[in-house]
Amino acid sequence: MKKIICLSLFLVAAINFSVAQSLQSPNGELQMNFSLEEEGTPVYKLSFKGNEVIKTSKLGLELKEEEDLLSNFSVEGTEESSFDNTWTPVWGESKEIRNNYNELEVNLVQEETGRNLIIRFRLFNEGLGFRYEFPEQKDLVYFVIEEERTQFAMTGDHTAFWIPGDYDSQEYDYTESKLSEIREKFDSAVQPNASQEQFSKTGVQTSLMMKTEDGLYINLHEAALVEYSLMNLNLDDENMIFESWLTPDAVGNKGYLQTPAVSPWRTIMVSDDARDILVSNMNLNLNEPNKLEDTSWIKPVKYMGVWWEMITGKSSWAYTDELASVKLGETDYSKTKPNGKHAANTEHVKEYIDFAAEHGFDAVLVEGWNEGWEDWFGQSKDYVFDFVTPYPDFDVEEIHEYAQSKGVKMIMHHETSGAIRNYERHLDTAYQFMNKYDYPAVKSGYVGDIIPRGEHHYGQWAINHYLYAVKKAADYKVMVNAHEAVRPTGLRRTYPNLIGNESARGTEFQAFGGSKPNHVTILPFTRLIGGPMDYTPGIFEMDISKLNPDNDSHVNSTIANQLALYVTMYSPLQMAADLPENYMKFPDAFQFIKDVALDWDKSIYLEAEPGDYITVARKEKGSSNWFVGNVNGNEARTSMIQFDFLEKEKNYIATVYSDAPDAHYKTNPQAYEIKKYRVNSKSELSQKSVPGGGYAISIMEADKSETKDLKKL
Amino acid sequence: MKKIICLSLFLVAAINFSVAQSLQSPNGELQMNFSLEEEGTPVYKLSFKGNEVIKTSKLGLELKEEEDLLSNFSVEGTEESSFDNTWTPVWGESKEIRNNYNELEVNLVQEETGRNLIIRFRLFNEGLGFRYEFPEQKDLVYFVIEEERTQFAMTGDHTAFWIPGDYDSQEYDYTESKLSEIREKFDSAVQPNASQEQFSKTGVQTSLMMKTEDGLYINLHEAALVEYSLMNLNLDDENMIFESWLTPDAVGNKGYLQTPAVSPWRTIMVSDDARDILVSNMNLNLNEPNKLEDTSWIKPVKYMGVWWEMITGKSSWAYTDELASVKLGETDYSKTKPNGKHAANTEHVKEYIDFAAEHGFDAVLVEGWNEGWEDWFGQSKDYVFDFVTPYPDFDVEEIHEYAQSKGVKMIMHHETSGAIRNYERHLDTAYQFMNKYDYPAVKSGYVGDIIPRGEHHYGQWAINHYLYAVKKAADYKVMVNAHEAVRPTGLRRTYPNLIGNESARGTEFQAFGGSKPNHVTILPFTRLIGGPMDYTPGIFEMDISKLNPDNDSHVNSTIANQLALYVTMYSPLQMAADLPENYMKFPDAFQFIKDVALDWDKSIYLEAEPGDYITVARKEKGSSNWFVGNVNGNEARTSMIQFDFLEKEKNYIATVYSDAPDAHYKTNPQAYEIKKYRVNSKSELSQKSVPGGGYAISIMEADKSETKDLKKL
Repeated sequence: MKKIICLSLFLVAAINFSVAQSLQSPNGELQMNFSLEEEGTPVYKLSFKGNEVIKTSKLGLELKEEEDLLSNFSVEGTEESSFDNTWTPVWGESKEIRNNYNELEVNLVQEETGRNLIIRFRLFNEGLGFRYEFPEQKDLVYFVIEEERTQFAMTGDHTAFWIPGDYDSQEYDYTESKLSEIREKFDSAVQPNASQEQFSKTGVQTSLMMKTEDGLYINLHEAALVEYSLMNLNLDDENMIFESWLTPDAVGNKGYLQTPAVSPWRTIMVSDDARDILVSNMNLNLNEPNKLEDTSWIKPVKYMGVWWEMITGKSSWAYTDELASVKLGETDYSKTKPNGKHAANTEHVKEYIDFAAEHGFDAVLVEGWNEGWEDWFGQSKDYVFDFVTPYPDFDVEEIHEYAQSKGVKMIMHHETSGAIRNYERHLDTAYQFMNKYDYPAVKSGYVGDIIPRGEHHYGQWAINHYLYAVKKAADYKVMVNAHEAVRPTGLRRTYPNLIGNESARGTEFQAFGGSKPNHVTILPFTRLIGGPMDYTPGIFEMDISKLNPDNDSHVNSTIANQLALYVTMYSPLQMAADLPENYMKFPDAFQFIKDVALDWDKSIYLEAEPGDYITVARKEKGSSNWFVGNVNGNEARTSMIQFDFLEKEKNYIATVYSDAPDAHYKTNPQAYEIKKYRVNSKSELSQKSVPGGGYAISIMEADKSETKDLKKL
Repeated sequence: MKKIICLSLFLVAAINFSVAQSLQSPNGELQMNFSLEEEGTPVYKLSFKGNEVIKTSKLGLELKEEEDLLSNFSVEGTEESSFDNTWTPVWGESKEIRNNYNELEVNLVQEETGRNLIIRFRLFNEGLGFRYEFPEQKDLVYFVIEEERTQFAMTGDHTAFWIPGDYDSQEYDYTESKLSEIREKFDSAVQPNASQEQFSKTGVQTSLMMKTEDGLYINLHEAALVEYSLMNLNLDDENMIFESWLTPDAVGNKGYLQTPAVSPWRTIMVSDDARDILVSNMNLNLNEPNKLEDTSWIKPVKYMGVWWEMITGKSSWAYTDELASVKLGETDYSKTKPNGKHAANTEHVKEYIDFAAEHGFDAVLVEGWNEGWEDWFGQSKDYVFDFVTPYPDFDVEEIHEYAQSKGVKMIMHHETSGAIRNYERHLDTAYQFMNKYDYPAVKSGYVGDIIPRGEHHYGQWAINHYLYAVKKAADYKVMVNAHEAVRPTGLRRTYPNLIGNESARGTEFQAFGGSKPNHVTILPFTRLIGGPMDYTPGIFEMDISKLNPDNDSHVNSTIANQLALYVTMYSPLQMAADLPENYMKFPDAFQFIKDVALDWDKSIYLEAEPGDYITVARKEKGSSNWFVGNVNGNEARTSMIQFDFLEKEKNYIATVYSDAPDAHYKTNPQAYEIKKYRVNSKSELSQKSVPGGGYAISIMEADKSETKDLKKL
């Protein structure tokens, strides 16, 4: 017996001593090390090509009314595995997605409490994902999270592209600064919003894009945010350590979990090539596979809308200016005086349907169609809309028939005004109304503070709601584009009817004072890491006072930049946001918007630098067409791109829509040039983009006979 | 011009000086005086038969972020009117109800803000009701209530029957004490509860019953609590002034209103005869008339239930003891080991159906029929029940067929566990399930803290929900009996499908340690002022250890007292709560429960003293039968009643179920006597009731031939 005991003790000792675990990425460039510090605190660190990228960082959670899950752990066991498969999304930047990682599962047991905690690490070539798992167990059944204490310890005072940490809004311009400068720049970074609440002068949101002095790109985000509260990051700017800062509920608790449960994945992307950050599908790959059996009804949408004229103030959502307030079902609109500025009226909508039909758009969105817009905002109003009662001048039947006769779909609008219970009470009838009148998609909005009061847009309560609305929409075969909701974290893999979110500072803010001209060179590195954005581009008239003399906003972009956005700001849902009359001033530029595809076989990021430029080429799904887009930042720049993505032996016409040489986002935004070229896989282009400018290229296969008179690139 | 100006000024002065307004009750016994104090503070006072009952008391509201509605008012105008009509309730204590009052409408304008406030007073013979009205106006559209400041200034240190003011529970024994003693007795009055929160050591709930040293009875309550938060009362025990104390929401606000809006009615009943308090229909009369077009499906219900055996701990709601927790839709109950104590199983339910059919009961309630009871409580669990998925041993189809074949209805049970959003998400499918399986009524429950967290059972948010559930139930022709919801305030007039509430300390607490023996002599003066109570009486086995050896609770009541409750504790929904085997031990006593009616042509309160005794006679609707009930308090007492309520020239058999002479709620609760008498309108009865005892009498018309051998009263 003695011999066996000795051997067992030795093995036990060996296991305890070799608690340190390491994990490599498939290509070996990334290495993650896990271990337990003294007091049994789990920590990890990450290195890239042999150099530390994330210093030793703690893991764990602080619980309410229970012993914390922070320390006193030992490793009960570990398991390594690898995964490599390819799957097909319903829609996306590419036809197929490879999911390849090495995984380490670490099983921890907490000595005194006997509780188990699993930390699962997945190391992809482009980055690390890890999450906490709380197995079903006797000693941990229901628990309340006081705070998650996941650290991301930076190796230096990196440059970051950040927006202020906030429980309710992401609609901020990005600030580019050193981490050490966040504190001093914080207050001026907080632009006003309908609903917002910051928590720390060094709090920031994810995804957070950073660049080190050594030219490494680091991106922090989360994937699969389900039944949990959103993770902001709080920076300890003495030690340059970020720590997770979850969103509280009305009573200050940060999460209610029931085992078995998992946290979302915390993700760290690392590369010395910025394009890898944009190319990565890690966020999607960390989500659960598609749960919808039938996805035949889910289709990308190119649309226009009765919307921009209200955003600019030219028209109104409201029907009348006579009412101090509205009580749905009691207020008799037929007795009020129309204000003459209500855009969502039958005749005007038909004009949009005509325009959409003429120019090959799939659909028309109409906002302001339903009773309630006179007092919808800023009153903490509970029963704010019923989502089914049109204004007197919006004939839903007539519009339905007209749209059908023209082969155009209608997009529904559900502004919830943050009144979540009211929306849920009406959700079934609202979706049934959509089915009845053939609205295949809805743009939902959550403008204003959340009701129930005390809850936040990014708390577990609201996050549960957003998914509830998407799942119920799927039951009705409805696609959802949720604005002001939580920024996406890859759930579109599981629920591909979630075709869009805004959840960042979109084009509308160009009419609310303007956004930074390089905003669109940052968004794909930050907001779009978790999913597409309904950025609603395509503004041709930059001087908003031309639409509404009382609004002196200026759209800080050139027309060429606006065209490029259809390629660079990936979304299966793309709006031509401006008014038909503004498109008709530049029908040749408008042609690009009409031609550009929405769904892709392949996407190739040709060049990218956060804050400066992004150039991407995408192949239209099931076609030989390609589209290229370049968005440029604050400095004029010449882009040099190779067309080696084109199929060899094929001949193409490339139509290049670019800034005119004297264009400028501020002083001369509407100056553009259109040039047609003959191109093939050997072609190259050197193209100048102005500040806030860019270029867009449509590339279509053509016979040599069609291109022989064109200049060759 | 001068003359006219002088005259106008005089009139204006006259109007200003005669701001004091008085209002009389129809019989002239009550007089209300309204005026403005200095600084334009509205005040009122009330006198009865020339003596002050309510001293000068302030009115008004404190608003958040706006000038308060407390002072700086002047009277813009007043209007007096009278009302006298009779209406017919769908069910009730009487077939017809007279609504007779004099009304004073006072229109106030606040000088600086230009805002209008109306205070409407209605003076009935039995009391005063008044409410605030906020007319639609430009300067007051949306506002938030910080606190309502309605005072009720007492004329002395009255005796009160009170429960601690609380935002979440009314399930307390009443304390009888002087107002000055509330503070010292407060802490011991707070019995433990699943969800409770007090706010002041002199806070009490309504309705508050009081008796002055001069023998006047005063009752404070509210009527028509809709889209507002519940009013508790806080006592300034130096000055003996009660002030309204509303229930806050998660962020501390006490109400969100949009004009035009009204507050609930604040009611003050006054009489020198305690019976007038019980007879009064003022609370109902202050509510809006019936809104349901078709009420043919609304019927009183006499029922039994698979319930008391779980309350006593003999059986369990839960199916298995194996699970630490349940995830609905994931947990596979067929793989768990039944605990053998799950009462809601098909065979056992059929036994109840048999018993109900045999003994003429309308329906059987079953609790614990649905998945989720293993961890439903105390975990702040959101997705706690789905209300449609039965346990493996509850065959809903089979039970449906069996019940139908026996002519017995099933009563549904929806325990929400306070998870309001979860209930609302499932409400339609839950009611559809009821329709499908012919469940005409549901007992709903709200045990535990409300989710969304931070909200309270009596806040505006939850109150909005309770009414939403009742209105939606009416759409499905479902009757609702809501437990742990807000105590009723007469809404059954407007929604007669609200057939019951518990919302006070009911019979179940007899199995949780017992209630005071005189509890049932107080409840009709307090809890029942706003509506009937599903008190679930009829316990025949007082020694709970006989059902569950681990539960040594004792039911502090005699059998005769239990029988009387069917008459004294008015409810259109009456349960025979005990187990069939306990009824079969005393089939002769059980006969009264089988005979007693549920709906009434007339109710006559023969004698009443809060805390001591109540004796009431009621005439069965559409029948010549009468039923009499007496419940007695802590001291033995002999009741002397006249039968002059009977129709003259008719002959009746009166079956008197009374305490045996040696009965006692504690030591000999099951000792009763049954005596039959011949009675007519000239008869009298002198009947002794023991402590915690009482008597019940069924009186049925009979031929002289049937009664000739009976003793005559």
